Amino acid sequence: MPGVGEIPKKYLLNGVSVIGSKKGDQINAMSAAWVCRASIDPPLVMVGIGFKRRSYPMIKESGFYTISVLREDQVETARHFGRTPKFGVEKFENYPYVLGETGAPLLEDCLATIECKVVSSFVAGDHEWFVGEIIREELRNPGEPLIYRHRDYH
Amino acid sequence: MPGVGEIPKKYLLNGVSVIGSKKGDQINAMSAAWVCRASIDPPLVMVGIGFKRRSYPMIKESGFYTISVLREDQVETARHFGRTPKFGVEKFENYPYVLGETGAPLLEDCLATIECKVVSSFVAGDHEWFVGEIIREELRNPGEPLIYRHRDYH
Repeated sequence: MPGVGEIPKKYLLNGVSVIGSKKGDQINAMSAAWVCRASIDPPLVMVGIGFKRRSYPMIKESGFYTISVLREDQVETARHFGRTPKFGVEKFENYPYVLGETGAPLLEDCLATIECKVVSSFVAGDHEWFVGEIIREELRNPGEPLIYRHRDYH
Repeated sequence: MPGVGEIPKKYLLNGVSVIGSKKGDQINAMSAAWVCRASIDPPLVMVGIGFKRRSYPMIKESGFYTISVLREDQVETARHFGRTPKFGVEKFENYPYVLGETGAPLLEDCLATIECKVVSSFVAGDHEWFVGEIIREELRNPGEPLIYRHRDYH
């Protein structure tokens, strides 16, 4: 696997990320703080997605998602992907992206990107958690991870 | 449920915690950064515990665990409960604790404590994640949560 193991563990423990998804030609992305490492060996991560989110059926049906880990100077990016009513390609206006190996989008400007294949999932209350095998990790622009602080979004 | 909902969400998103467990008269505790909120409604949390940890069979068999969320000035406490070879009551020497409703230990000096009843669990690689219903939350000593930084422990 290219790039697996390059990203410091702290990036996922504390960061705010943008979760990319796809379904056919459709792509989408949403901000998320519920992103965790799930296993050390094998290295697995997981994201919790609310059932009502537009990204939910896209991840559920495609079996793939991406994680673009934000830098501490990207609170505005986190707000954008958390709040905009736009959907799909329009949501990425002013936020350049590339499509990863799986076809799901990755932000060009972020700390690091991780592409995942869903290997299992489980329901906990109003969220489904998608456990992902890491297909590819890439460090992008150096910096410190953006730490989720409730006050930044409310 | 007394106290449920009092703790800002950020405490669990970014914190380092000490996970308390019990089995019969035996108690134990271990530091953990893999602690997440799992669901908003109902409010559920979860902790990932490695199969080799001494706390693992205690949580698995008792069905309970506690989370003592550490403050930013408690790196030493995090190191202690992460590293000491001591086990059980001896591990708490110099770290005063109380037993919660479930019999599992809670640190007296920390940001907040959460007592959980396991409602489900799932295996992801080398960890089992225990999804917990919050039985009781308590704010203890004010401050900011301790953010996990790899360099503090390695």
